[in-house]
Amino acid sequence: MNIVLLSGGSGKRLWPLSNDIRSKQFIKIFKTEDGSYESMVQRVYRQIKKVDADATVTIATSKTQVSAIHNQLGEEVGISVEPCRRDTFPAIALATAYLTDVKGVDPEESVVVCPVDPYVEDDYFEALKALGEQADKGEANLVLMGIEPTYPSEKYGYIIPENADQTAFVSTFKEKPTQEVAVEYIRQGALWNGGMFAYKLRYLLDKAHELIDFTDYQDLFSKYDTLTKISFDYAVVEKEDKIQVMRFVGQWKDLGTWNTLTEAMEENSVGNAIQNETCENVHIVNELGVPVLAMGLHDVVISASPEGILVSDKEQSSYIKPFVDQIDQQIMFAEKSWGSFRVLDVEEESLTIKVTLNGGHSMNYHSHKNRDEVWVVISGTGKTIVDGMEQKVKAGDVVTMEAGCRHTILAETELKLIEVQLGKEISVHDKQKFPLE
Amino acid sequence: MNIVLLSGGSGKRLWPLSNDIRSKQFIKIFKTEDGSYESMVQRVYRQIKKVDADATVTIATSKTQVSAIHNQLGEEVGISVEPCRRDTFPAIALATAYLTDVKGVDPEESVVVCPVDPYVEDDYFEALKALGEQADKGEANLVLMGIEPTYPSEKYGYIIPENADQTAFVSTFKEKPTQEVAVEYIRQGALWNGGMFAYKLRYLLDKAHELIDFTDYQDLFSKYDTLTKISFDYAVVEKEDKIQVMRFVGQWKDLGTWNTLTEAMEENSVGNAIQNETCENVHIVNELGVPVLAMGLHDVVISASPEGILVSDKEQSSYIKPFVDQIDQQIMFAEKSWGSFRVLDVEEESLTIKVTLNGGHSMNYHSHKNRDEVWVVISGTGKTIVDGMEQKVKAGDVVTMEAGCRHTILAETELKLIEVQLGKEISVHDKQKFPLE
Repeated sequence: MNIVLLSGGSGKRLWPLSNDIRSKQFIKIFKTEDGSYESMVQRVYRQIKKVDADATVTIATSKTQVSAIHNQLGEEVGISVEPCRRDTFPAIALATAYLTDVKGVDPEESVVVCPVDPYVEDDYFEALKALGEQADKGEANLVLMGIEPTYPSEKYGYIIPENADQTAFVSTFKEKPTQEVAVEYIRQGALWNGGMFAYKLRYLLDKAHELIDFTDYQDLFSKYDTLTKISFDYAVVEKEDKIQVMRFVGQWKDLGTWNTLTEAMEENSVGNAIQNETCENVHIVNELGVPVLAMGLHDVVISASPEGILVSDKEQSSYIKPFVDQIDQQIMFAEKSWGSFRVLDVEEESLTIKVTLNGGHSMNYHSHKNRDEVWVVISGTGKTIVDGMEQKVKAGDVVTMEAGCRHTILAETELKLIEVQLGKEISVHDKQKFPLE
Repeated sequence: MNIVLLSGGSGKRLWPLSNDIRSKQFIKIFKTEDGSYESMVQRVYRQIKKVDADATVTIATSKTQVSAIHNQLGEEVGISVEPCRRDTFPAIALATAYLTDVKGVDPEESVVVCPVDPYVEDDYFEALKALGEQADKGEANLVLMGIEPTYPSEKYGYIIPENADQTAFVSTFKEKPTQEVAVEYIRQGALWNGGMFAYKLRYLLDKAHELIDFTDYQDLFSKYDTLTKISFDYAVVEKEDKIQVMRFVGQWKDLGTWNTLTEAMEENSVGNAIQNETCENVHIVNELGVPVLAMGLHDVVISASPEGILVSDKEQSSYIKPFVDQIDQQIMFAEKSWGSFRVLDVEEESLTIKVTLNGGHSMNYHSHKNRDEVWVVISGTGKTIVDGMEQKVKAGDVVTMEAGCRHTILAETELKLIEVQLGKEISVHDKQKFPLE
């Protein structure tokens, strides 16, 4: 199976765990059999590989997520990087071109597209596999997955099939209805449209060339920022006549809010947390080293991260976005391709951070105009290069770097250091990169 | 007026703002007229000085609070340091001996004793002054303040006066009653016993010599740890016949729990906090730099400090103690005589802290057996002494200290530094102090 996972925007709905540079799909929140925690994207990837060990998985996403994806899934996974956000049709066109032109997949093969963050069981991926096999048959140009509704939801669009067969041609599509109208749709045999579908690569390449003037993947990539924003539903699905739907009955949850996310948590607390006996339906996700104590709360979610602390009634948590938009918090934690950093202390003319470099990785070779820096290595071994001078370093070693000097550190083992930045104008934008001499 | 303020134990009931080394009376939580915040002890001290500018204020407390008291009240305030905790009778005997033997107060003068943390208005201190003046008259050996009950509380002992006069002899004392019994006491004209009283120093010195074998303050201080724990009520009040009570009508609150403390807060939020419009009766005290967002909560207190995060129903918050007892959190923040420190990062073989030295202050000259240390000065100017070698330092300077070397830093201006401790056995107990050579 070829599968493209659409990995969406930054998502502030799960603040403080998600922020501008850390998306919800990377939060390690699901307990695995061995007691460790995995993220949504790790869970989905593991499930796909279990159902189809040979599956070719491609993640369509923005540049900001590339590091996190490689950190969590390794180097084998394919990534179709969108240079900027242009809605789902350009994203799917780009991923399709990536599969044929970069990965060399035969255009006669089919591909399954689905969001990166459904909370599902293995049977869902069995159904996706069947979706691809149905597309292979060529009876239709597009095969959608239709989910049997469990309640008259106002959150989803509806697909009305021509009949109640497992696989049927689509009669019509319906926009997100009111609850009353949803009841009527369901009476007519309507299914939820969750944005999962399959097609032969050739079909979508042709569609893309119809709508966009481009030659190949590289060309499409280079003019991506000039493309018009348009959704796949609008550009393709709603205009296609030869379209089938396969029904799926089983668990399918969209974990987009704290309310739905906590429903999927196996434990009431992740991290250092205590709930007293009078707490009911309380979920705590604590990424800080210090304890959270909850007493006498009902239907509340508490989440603490280096970015901030949320305490919300579960229902209310779906209205979080405007409040997070008004928080002007500097990024306090980030995963990078080479490891991670966390801000420890902020002063007017200094910033102290902790940097963790993964073994074998290094920072870019770079300099800063307006700040001096001091590194204190606290664990691991590696090598620093400062203005071309190499030096082996281990725990306890101190490196001082004046503004303007070029520097990097290469980790032999996992290496942790405390970096103190000193200057009047400390900014993440004050950074010039250089090739290593 | 001579006044002794009894400053009690560490107090975990206001965790995470109070802990083993930081008592609730030092939390800066009350907004003053100029927009800054003051602590309970600062508020009380300011109120006393307003009512009686010449008042001699002595705080009876343990060694652990001395630094915080001087930081918050300055050097002028007297401190009677209890070498260990021995309940209120030994503490009051020691403070009385301190006043006569150390401060040279005439034993014929009277003194007023009251807890350090009542939440009151100025009229309360006017009443305390009157209490001292009544003791001066010598009609009774002890003059208590009796507070007119506002409800039949089960939390206080009751004083039944002989009549309803402003000042009356005491008929009898009653232990904390049930609510039903309290109603009956109040019908009989009973007053709350809040532990405020006045006596002539001579009276209590005599009582102390009756019960304890000692010569003077120094002698009492040196044998303090051998004294039997006994309360002032049990040792003195309940056995005294010549005892009066003066009634007080006015605000008097004991801010011992989050529930009562938040009632006294003028604002719903202290620190970086957002409440959405569906929050009702929510109080947030946030000492962290990152924001707290509260949504859809009712009757909840949220408090975040470097020690941890509390989210509690206000009623439930009075049951906090056993939960805090089970938290084995290393001290993450402390005020010292020379400034303050905060733990920024904890690793297996390193600990990173931020140290703030007040201008003109210094650390002890000390060494560590099992750890190296690195200082990075981030603001201010001062002087380091490392194994006898002096060096001027300013922001950006780095000092490295191997295990065993003696070191200190003297702040010229306020000086902040990042200290990285490195070693296999990092412990606060690994510290040898030396006199400066």
